[in-house]
Order: sequence, then C-alpha cells, then structure tokens
Amino acid sequence: MDKMIVGVIGFGTVGAGVVKILLNDKEMLEKRAGIPVILKKIADLDITTDRGVKVPDGVLTNNADEILNDSEINTVVEVIGGENPAKKFIEAALNSGKNVVTSNKEVIAKHGLHFTSMAEKNNCSILYEAAVGGGIPILHAVRNSLSANKIEKVFGIVNGTTNYILTKMTDSGADFAATLKEAQDLGYAEADPKNDVEGYDVAYKLSILAGLAFRCHVDYREIYREGITKITPDDIAAAKRFNYSIKMTAIGMRREDKLELRVHPVMIRNSHPLASVNDAFNAIYIRGGSVGDVMFYGQGAGEMPTASAVVGDIMNLAFRKADGFSEDSRYDLHAMPVMPIDECVTSFFIRYTVTDEPGVLAAVSTVFAKNKVSILSIQQVDAAGGQAAITAITHPVEERSMKNALEEMKKLACVKEICSVIRVGLGE
Amino acid sequence: MDKMIVGVIGFGTVGAGVVKILLNDKEMLEKRAGIPVILKKIADLDITTDRGVKVPDGVLTNNADEILNDSEINTVVEVIGGENPAKKFIEAALNSGKNVVTSNKEVIAKHGLHFTSMAEKNNCSILYEAAVGGGIPILHAVRNSLSANKIEKVFGIVNGTTNYILTKMTDSGADFAATLKEAQDLGYAEADPKNDVEGYDVAYKLSILAGLAFRCHVDYREIYREGITKITPDDIAAAKRFNYSIKMTAIGMRREDKLELRVHPVMIRNSHPLASVNDAFNAIYIRGGSVGDVMFYGQGAGEMPTASAVVGDIMNLAFRKADGFSEDSRYDLHAMPVMPIDECVTSFFIRYTVTDEPGVLAAVSTVFAKNKVSILSIQQVDAAGGQAAITAITHPVEERSMKNALEEMKKLACVKEICSVIRVGLGE
Repeated sequence: MDKMIVGVIGFGTVGAGVVKILLNDKEMLEKRAGIPVILKKIADLDITTDRGVKVPDGVLTNNADEILNDSEINTVVEVIGGENPAKKFIEAALNSGKNVVTSNKEVIAKHGLHFTSMAEKNNCSILYEAAVGGGIPILHAVRNSLSANKIEKVFGIVNGTTNYILTKMTDSGADFAATLKEAQDLGYAEADPKNDVEGYDVAYKLSILAGLAFRCHVDYREIYREGITKITPDDIAAAKRFNYSIKMTAIGMRREDKLELRVHPVMIRNSHPLASVNDAFNAIYIRGGSVGDVMFYGQGAGEMPTASAVVGDIMNLAFRKADGFSEDSRYDLHAMPVMPIDECVTSFFIRYTVTDEPGVLAAVSTVFAKNKVSILSIQQVDAAGGQAAITAITHPVEERSMKNALEEMKKLACVKEICSVIRVGLGE
Repeated sequence: MDKMIVGVIGFGTVGAGVVKILLNDKEMLEKRAGIPVILKKIADLDITTDRGVKVPDGVLTNNADEILNDSEINTVVEVIGGENPAKKFIEAALNSGKNVVTSNKEVIAKHGLHFTSMAEKNNCSILYEAAVGGGIPILHAVRNSLSANKIEKVFGIVNGTTNYILTKMTDSGADFAATLKEAQDLGYAEADPKNDVEGYDVAYKLSILAGLAFRCHVDYREIYREGITKITPDDIAAAKRFNYSIKMTAIGMRREDKLELRVHPVMIRNSHPLASVNDAFNAIYIRGGSVGDVMFYGQGAGEMPTASAVVGDIMNLAFRKADGFSEDSRYDLHAMPVMPIDECVTSFFIRYTVTDEPGVLAAVSTVFAKNKVSILSIQQVDAAGGQAAITAITHPVEERSMKNALEEMKKLACVKEICSVIRVGLGE
C-alpha cells in the first residue's frame, strides 16, 4: 500500500471521533505512517446531524455502497455496531480485498472466524483493537509484544456501564434499578440495557480476548454468563464489611486441554488493584508464561478513546507497508473445549436468612460439610422478628458441590431464603 | 525474511532467559511467526557456567565475531548491558545489515540516534522494547497502537531497585544504607548501586520513552536527575502522616515547544494507583490526546519478563515479513529544548528544624511569602531541647522561587537546618 484511502461506515459517537482524528491530525498521522492517509467517504443514514467536526464537501453519503464499491478505497472502518447490517458491510469490504477496521465486538464475537478466513482468502486484514477495552491497546499487545508467551490467564473489567453502575451503587447505597435509571439518564447505559447488564457485552469481549490469548476459537455462546441485575445494596454492604468490592469481570484460564471461561460479578479483595478500577474505566490482566502478570488500564469506551484504537489500527496497517496478512491471523483455529461451570472451582459469598433459634447453625453446617463446602468466614448480620440474616464466605469449592449444598439448604425448615450467591476472587 | 536466524551476545541472566524461550518454546514461536526461528549461536566470555538451559553442541562460542561475521545470522540479540563493548557489537551487526534486538537502556540512551540512522542506511531495524519497563510492552504501544495520539505526558515508576528499596524502607522504617545493603544481599541491587540509586538508569529510560512519545531526540544528559540516597526514615514517616508514599519517578511533559523532563523521588498521594506499585514492579502512564490516560503495569526486570520483551521484538521482526524499516524509526529526529529545572512548577515537601521560640513561624512565613511560596499544610512534628521539627507542603510553585526561599531560610538565625526537600505530585 502506498497510501491509505479510508471510508468510514457509521457517523455516530465513535465514527465522529475517528473522523476528527483523521481530519484534524492528518499531518501527524501521515508523518508517522510515511504515506498519505486520506479520508475519502463517510456513510451514515443520517448525514445532517452536527457531529462536531467540519467535513469537506462530497465526503458524506447516505449510501454505504459508495464506499464498498469504490475501488480506490482500500480500508473500510465499520463503526455502526451491532450484528446487522455491519456483517454484510464487512463481508462486502473483505470480498473486494479491502482491509477492515472495526470497533464492533458483537459482530467479531459472532463472525470473527468467518471474517478472518475471508480476509486470508482475499489477502487483506481485519483489525478490531477497539472491540475490547476501548482505547487500551490490549489485543495488539497479545498478538505482537507478548507473542513470546504461552498465555495462561486473562481477566479483568471490560464493561464500563456495569462498572459505572456498581461503583455508584457502592458509593450511594442505592439499588440496581435506581442506579441503572441514573446511568441511562447520563448516557452511561442504553435504553435497552440488557447487552451490558446481563453480561453479553462482556462475553463477546472475553471470546475475542481469550481467542487471541489462547490461540484458539472461542464460541461466545459457550461462556458461562451471569449479569449484575441481582446485586442488591445488602450485598454491597456485606462486601464492604468483608473488605471486598463487587465488580463485573471476565475470567479466562487455560486448564490443561480445556478453557475455563466465566463472565459474572465477583467480590474482589480491596487490596487487589482491580478493586479500585472505578466508574467507566477498564483494566485487563494478562498472565504470560514468561512475563508474569501485566496489567493494562484505561478508558474502555467513549468517543475519543475508542477512536484512538480505531485509528491505531489504521496506522498499524499503514506501518506494514507490505499488503497482506500477518500476525492478526487467528491462524490456530481449532476450538478448545470449555469446562462446564459445574466443574469450576471458586470461593462463594452467600447471604441467607434463617429462623433465629438454637440448632440452626448446626443444621446448616451439616449440609455444608456433607457437600464438602468449607466455611472461611461467617457473620450474623442482624436478627429481628425471629429471623437472622447470615453472610458467609466459603473456601474454594467445585461449583457443583455448592449448588448441591444450596439445594439442600433450601429444604431445611430453618432456612427461610437464600438471598444472594456471589463468587469470590479471580480464580487464582 | 523467510526465516529468523538469531545470534545471542551475552549469556547472563537476560541472555539465559532469551535462550530458554527460543529453545523451549521453538514450536510455539514458529507457529506464530509462520517462519522458522532458529537460535544459531550464543557468545559469552564465560561459556562454562550452567545457565539452567541445555544448549545444543556447537552453539556456544566465546567469540562474538562468530555471530557478527556469520552471514546467515540476520538478527543479533545484544544482552550484555552497559555501553562497551555493546556499542561496537551493535554497530558491527547493523553495518552488516543484521537486525538488532537489545535490552540495553544505557547504550540506547547514549547512541540510539546513531544506531537508528545506521539501521536506516542498512535497511535493517533496531528494537529495544526490554530497555524500558522490562516485560511491559510500552514502547511498541507508543509506536504503534497509540500512534493516533499526540502524547502529552509520560510518567511512572521504571526502576525496580529503587522501588524495592523505598518499599522496604516504608515497611520497615530502616534507613537507606541498611536497606540498600539488604537489597544487595538479595540481588535486587548491584555491588556498585550508583546507576540505580542516583537515577541514571531512570534517566536513560526516560530519554528513550520520551523520545518515542514526543517524537524527538532527547539527550539523557539534559534530564534533571536526583537520586534516592538522601531519603530518610523521617521523610518516610512524614509522608505517611500526610497520607503519601515516596516513589522514584520519571516525569516527561510537553510544554508548548519545550519538554519538561525530571527524574527524582516524589511524594504521591496514597489514593493514586502509582502509590501502591511496590517492590520490583514498574508502572507507566501515557497521556494521549485522544486516548486519555492509559497505564501499563508489570515486572520491570528479571530473567523471564525481560526475555519476554526481547523475544517479543524478535517476533515483531518476524511478523513484518518484509525486510526494512518501519514504525520503529525515530523519523522525527529534531531535538526539543528541555525546560530548565528552575522553571518547572511543582509542590514541595520540606522538613526543617527551628529554635522553639515565639516569632519563628512569622519569620519563616515572611520568607515564604516574599518568594511567592504558599503553604498548603504545616505540622510541628516534635519539640525537644529548645528545637522544633517542622514539616510543610507547599502549593505548586516555580522551582526557582522555592530555591530562593530555602536560601533565605538558611540565613535566618531561628532556622537550624533544612533537613529534606522532596517534590510532591506527578506534575498534573
């Protein structure tokens, strides 16, 4: 490639950020790339809204085909998000041998494998740094700088919306519904929040990150996923008493010939650096065979941080000089089996209510012991009206055993309710 | 390049780590690179010591020329450290058109510009990821993934030895000399510790990092440098009282057409993430125009983390497929003027002793006020034998004004001694 001729599909928040960098910092980018970097077209259905950047005449179009059919454009930026019509735009671009840069985790999690083989066939590339961790350059580091490592583990906070909600719930003591509403009013959560609060977004990101880290194909549908909708102010208060914070996390580990992959809220000890990653920030740990633990921290979303990663990918393509396919290939496309959640081992926090009478502790303890659940710490929180609320943290135990213990507990007459079950720790 | 044929010069700690990865993980590396990665020769004066890795017959030599004159070897790893003879080995390799990968901050800080133009002339590359931050992939991120950003600031903890010493002094209350001795016994500090404790190592690293971040040539000799040898247990105790930690830091900032570059101990508020970077860990912040703050954390030294970065550079060369010079060029080789330390603005912590009598506070305050030094917080620590020890933290003030105030304070009869002056904060 002797010049980058770029078409941007999608002129929303991220698209506007990309356009701002491409237009306002053109001189800097071209000096660094050593070749011209030209924004030729921007396609969006809405080309009248002011996006805060002045676009030259003739660049805006409401027809994506003007980009996809332009033989001069060699790099297509897809920043509309969601599965459709992004998928068909990406396919069309790759089919014409155009490089694709996207920030779209959903379409990559669902069709990344398909896109990768299309790109290989057409001697072009698809890059998607912005799809995981926003502005944090984690994927390129895994592919390139850390490639001398067999990666054993990836974990972290990769969703700004849930981290914002949990941070606010921790600060204010408010419940999930009220805090979600506030986040929606401030633009930190979408009108339909399911993608974030039910953990789909995190599962998409984990499938992409784990696929690159463990050099295999990870189907996001095989990832155990649990959202934050059931977290209550009582859970947050209990976590504080135990000196923990509740965070929505992605955890991926190599377990001999299987992968352990889980997306769920976790109680993290406050001395762990992830416990102080607050608001919309993201932080990702990579544990490599040689490098040990490295951590990357930054803004996981937002117009300019995400645009930084998108334009970084464009620059990465420009730096290569040669056309074609290099380390961005997921060359190793075998699937690794995912460990069933029942076999995963973790500590648990449980909160439950019992009748406040002699013998209750013994009855519950017998159920725990029978199922090999060993208790690290137990507290009676309060007692009123003949009932007591109990919080307990277990030693690490197989998920299956914990489930059996909870089932048996529910059958005890003295146990009124199992209010919460939250995993503890990051799978050390 | 259709294969990487590697010669390693230096079979010490880092060299042994590099050899371990190249031999033990050969299959993984070649699968990832898509081309053979062959370790052909290792040169060291001592080829009899057991390095914990079995080397095939015929690979070891005590003559570096066997690597430098081998026309088949296309990549030379220099991991002997220090300025000489590393410089002449690197020159010889680049002159024969061989790529060079090095972990040597001193030789790069002193001769990086010279090597870069040699590499450009000979159509080969010199990479030195391991020279800053050990295993943390910071330089490649600055060059590549963050290249859509005008970088405004770099700062962090980049020397494991001084961070280890300051962490231990904080934990134990012991003084500098005793803690240094302990660090030397444990292998965390060298027999001649000057390079670390006087800040030379940090200045080398800052010149490399700032050069890439601000896209200019930074002469390490122009960096203001102050070591940790004068830090006392009293300073550490005072920092704790103010809820600060003392860390050895590198700070680089773009100030219009100048650079502010400083290497010295800093008091950092305990709520700042850098305050909890302990022992031999490193952490580096980059503030980009688009991405905002991103932070990278990991092991800044040690056999395998450093080797991870060295072999990562070898892989980076392999990924390129095409020969020649790409984003690793410091294409922008103008020097930017460095702001004189006297013009830098920062807060200060000062600890001084005075005669314990009426009017002293007024006398000192008059000196401060006259020199535009405004006090944020002041504490009388203890008083005995007619003397009182005072600690104070100032608002941000020009270094020049602070110096003038201190000179005048020394002339006051009531001021017995200025015990310590430590900068506060990270130049926000």
